Amino acid sequence: MSSRQAYLTQHQPQFIADLQDFVSLPSISSLPEHASDMATAAQWLAQRLERIGFENVEQVPTATHPVVYADWLHAADKPTILLYGHYDVQPADPVELWHSPPFVPEVREGRLYGRGASDNKGNLLAALIGLEAMLQVEGKLPVNVKLFLEGEEEVGSPHSLPLLAQERDRFACDICVNADGIQYAPDQPTILYSFRGMASFQVDVQGAKSDLHSGIYGGAIANPLHALASIVASFHNADGGIAVEDFYTAVAEMDPEERSRLARAPYDEMQYLADLGLDTVFGEPGYSTNERTWRRPTLEINGMWGGFQGKGTKTVLPNAAHAKVSCRLVAHQNPQRILEAIKAHVRRIAPPGVRVTVTPGVGKADPYLLPLSHPGVQILADSYRELYATDPIYIGSGGTIPVTAAMLDQLGVYSLVFGFCTRDEQIHAPNEFFRLSSFARAQEAYGVLLHKLAHADNLRQ
Amino acid sequence: MSSRQAYLTQHQPQFIADLQDFVSLPSISSLPEHASDMATAAQWLAQRLERIGFENVEQVPTATHPVVYADWLHAADKPTILLYGHYDVQPADPVELWHSPPFVPEVREGRLYGRGASDNKGNLLAALIGLEAMLQVEGKLPVNVKLFLEGEEEVGSPHSLPLLAQERDRFACDICVNADGIQYAPDQPTILYSFRGMASFQVDVQGAKSDLHSGIYGGAIANPLHALASIVASFHNADGGIAVEDFYTAVAEMDPEERSRLARAPYDEMQYLADLGLDTVFGEPGYSTNERTWRRPTLEINGMWGGFQGKGTKTVLPNAAHAKVSCRLVAHQNPQRILEAIKAHVRRIAPPGVRVTVTPGVGKADPYLLPLSHPGVQILADSYRELYATDPIYIGSGGTIPVTAAMLDQLGVYSLVFGFCTRDEQIHAPNEFFRLSSFARAQEAYGVLLHKLAHADNLRQ
Repeated sequence: MSSRQAYLTQHQPQFIADLQDFVSLPSISSLPEHASDMATAAQWLAQRLERIGFENVEQVPTATHPVVYADWLHAADKPTILLYGHYDVQPADPVELWHSPPFVPEVREGRLYGRGASDNKGNLLAALIGLEAMLQVEGKLPVNVKLFLEGEEEVGSPHSLPLLAQERDRFACDICVNADGIQYAPDQPTILYSFRGMASFQVDVQGAKSDLHSGIYGGAIANPLHALASIVASFHNADGGIAVEDFYTAVAEMDPEERSRLARAPYDEMQYLADLGLDTVFGEPGYSTNERTWRRPTLEINGMWGGFQGKGTKTVLPNAAHAKVSCRLVAHQNPQRILEAIKAHVRRIAPPGVRVTVTPGVGKADPYLLPLSHPGVQILADSYRELYATDPIYIGSGGTIPVTAAMLDQLGVYSLVFGFCTRDEQIHAPNEFFRLSSFARAQEAYGVLLHKLAHADNLRQ
Repeated sequence: MSSRQAYLTQHQPQFIADLQDFVSLPSISSLPEHASDMATAAQWLAQRLERIGFENVEQVPTATHPVVYADWLHAADKPTILLYGHYDVQPADPVELWHSPPFVPEVREGRLYGRGASDNKGNLLAALIGLEAMLQVEGKLPVNVKLFLEGEEEVGSPHSLPLLAQERDRFACDICVNADGIQYAPDQPTILYSFRGMASFQVDVQGAKSDLHSGIYGGAIANPLHALASIVASFHNADGGIAVEDFYTAVAEMDPEERSRLARAPYDEMQYLADLGLDTVFGEPGYSTNERTWRRPTLEINGMWGGFQGKGTKTVLPNAAHAKVSCRLVAHQNPQRILEAIKAHVRRIAPPGVRVTVTPGVGKADPYLLPLSHPGVQILADSYRELYATDPIYIGSGGTIPVTAAMLDQLGVYSLVFGFCTRDEQIHAPNEFFRLSSFARAQEAYGVLLHKLAHADNLRQ
């Protein structure tokens, strides 16, 4: 046992008590009545950072909740990492479904239950403890470290992420280590290397001045619902691929090595279909389900409506029809260029007799891909092998997380997602918990990772 | 002036007073609180029929309002006509928009204003007065006459029309004369010779057990909204024709003579488009707007919906999508066979990964077409020429009226639509009126028509 591990083991009861203390703060960013709890949580972090030896501790104000900044920059000639985490949590509703109060954290069977225990307070505190152990036992950190701990993650980071562009010098670094991540299972280390971006839009089809009698006008003028259906249907080929011209142009295709790694990610199609109540999967030809949801772009209709929706029959020829659409994008698609391709496509195929407009939605985000050739990937893999004594799997996320793309766009650095919660931990749901074994492993993991990063010299590529 | 005309002229003040009396009865079939008014109106007709010399006067009961029956069957070796009309009216709402109370009929500038004045009491009473004039002046009718005067037309005749099948002998005849008809304009006689039928259905597309996150599942499973759009889009060709196999198979194509008659019906495309706020018409290639709305079948989406319809973006992959559809049918399409063709089409093209069902709707009606070669058409044309000193135009109706198809199906007879209201008379709307000039002309018209029908010997063809 290394002396760092001995330190962690010795102080674990206190660290668990500290986590209980941190989780007991109801730092719900979306609810104005918890503004003072948010301030308390930021203050809690700032004080801890001071205590463990970080410098320049500052609560950088935003229009809502501050970003907690601190640094330790005494590793001359070593890389600088920017550690990302968030101290805000989701609301606890429905509270009645919790077995113990969400903000009175309770340890049961090796798990700490409470809102935010897993997402993200347990992970975040473990990272800080990992830093503390190095400073206490080794007297220094193997790399330079800056912190970016925000209080707006659960509300989309509207004011926090813009700080990256506003204070590029403060946050300048060689790589980001993102503590807001996940492992596939407690015994299965995982490299999460891609997030999809988003472009959303609404299609509106306008016909006559008013709804009309389908007996009197049916067959003689264009029906906006027919027009909308033909437009929506034209977005895809019958085989499931997307038929919008130039939609795939910028996509970074997977190489055989990447595909072979994704093929090793767990996927049980029988179980997948049974969970959904379906008899077949369906999507872009030539790709697996994991590839389709993680590494291929999509165009999904989220809603569509027009005319009569009640019981029985109403023989109306409606004068308007609408569809809401969101595209999940992959590297290196650009949301704006995708919207332009869609507008051009709709212009080309809009039928006569109706006016068709495409209006961009608010949901817009860049995709993110950590190239598997990046040296950080090897460092992650080596770290996981050391921690778990098994090889990591490689996965992507079908969802959209703005922070990784923002780090790349604003600071020019990739993110290593390095979090130790697992998919079963009820995040955003009642009875959220964090395994104490994961909490301890995460503390150790940060030491392992940072020592390996200390020897990398080409992280900023 | 014939002595029949002299009789009509002499008694016109009394006839107008009678019409006011008839219109003053609020015989609203759809409102239960007017049940006794319905009974009074039926009684009013029965008494009048007794008085003018009709026999076997009977109020044939139905589950709601009676059908008033009567006959005069003393024209040996002459055809028997069944005169159709209805004594029920629409509700008068919104009452505040009427310039005089809807059930206190008022004569202003040669028009009688009141609910039902035009639809159908004025037309119906004029027909009875025409019969009275013949019986009074000529001592007999030129043909045998039976009456079918219902009180359910404004609610779809659910119990009245089934009487035709239940009492085929009572209503047996050679032709129906339908007093619930229309002229294109006060000076433009009109032969309305076709009504469209209807078949309606709903398409339901079911996907997974529940709505899903479009980031996690998008691209990997079928989206019910995509499936619905592709099904709906497949119903039509890009040029506006219907792409459902066998949809047109049973359609009675127009011959050049019929098309040339329809080409002479009024149609001002500039005005048509301006009224609708459109820049082009759109429909089945090769047909005019009048042909498309009167003599060609349609398939119109009346409503379509699924997923998120609110403001902003919701990245949901919905698990269900729906469309309501109604087809207008023309002779000799059969609603049931059309539904089967649509079901077969949907079965053929339903994409994988979703369950698609087609459920027939309640709206189902046979189309009706009076062949222009039918001798009744020539008799109508000759009658109009005598009454208006101008040739009639030929029109169809895009809408659906069950009575003409029911007469053909149950009694095997065509209907001559012979009503004298015009399109400007605010039927079903506030300030409904009937021109007293039309009222007088209609009285005369029935004498002209029945005398001509007396010489026809092949009406039942």
